Amino acid sequence: MPEAVSISATPEQLAAVKYDANGLVAAIAQDVHTKAVLMMAWMNADTLRTTLQEGRMVYWSRSRKEVWRKGDTSGDRQFVREAYYDCDGDTLLFLVEQEGKGACHTGEYSCFFRSFGPEG
Amino acid sequence: MPEAVSISATPEQLAAVKYDANGLVAAIAQDVHTKAVLMMAWMNADTLRTTLQEGRMVYWSRSRKEVWRKGDTSGDRQFVREAYYDCDGDTLLFLVEQEGKGACHTGEYSCFFRSFGPEG
Repeated sequence: MPEAVSISATPEQLAAVKYDANGLVAAIAQDVHTKAVLMMAWMNADTLRTTLQEGRMVYWSRSRKEVWRKGDTSGDRQFVREAYYDCDGDTLLFLVEQEGKGACHTGEYSCFFRSFGPEG
Repeated sequence: MPEAVSISATPEQLAAVKYDANGLVAAIAQDVHTKAVLMMAWMNADTLRTTLQEGRMVYWSRSRKEVWRKGDTSGDRQFVREAYYDCDGDTLLFLVEQEGKGACHTGEYSCFFRSFGPEG
């Protein structure tokens, strides 16, 4: 059973994050073991803070307009192991321990299960 | 020297991509060899088509409001090896062969070179 470990971000690190006009920043979740990119979703300043404090991925659902504690419904939580922000501060990258069968609401392991090209 | 290989997407695959109010879709570039996430930027329908046809990453620069043929200035081009779209079609994932020293304009290999936490 994966454990949640909180990350103590400094005020300077948090201030480097830039939010868009809707107050959101893109957050990529990557499997810390397989290195597969699992999904991309959005966080606001509050859910980023919660994510770092609780050590598990908490997004902001743009469609439902509510806090999305990933895995509360599905059981497939994501525990944060490393957390990064990019050069211009508008994208976050989390290396996570993925619980359960995967990240995607379709039941797939990664949300990126469809490819362009003849093999589809 | 990496070679560009084009990807023949079907009309159905291209139609599954959903663009935001600005006509853009998020595009993640991941190193096909190391599996490191290199950067996240944006494409419109035209630059996605160009990316697949030419087999190298062509973004839309939101700040400069122009086509951004990654590497034309820096020499650090990204050659596409695999291309995916996610379950709701609003994020793309490209596995790329990264030319030169890396993806970031700062000179870093990945744009995600800063981490949250005491080690910074």
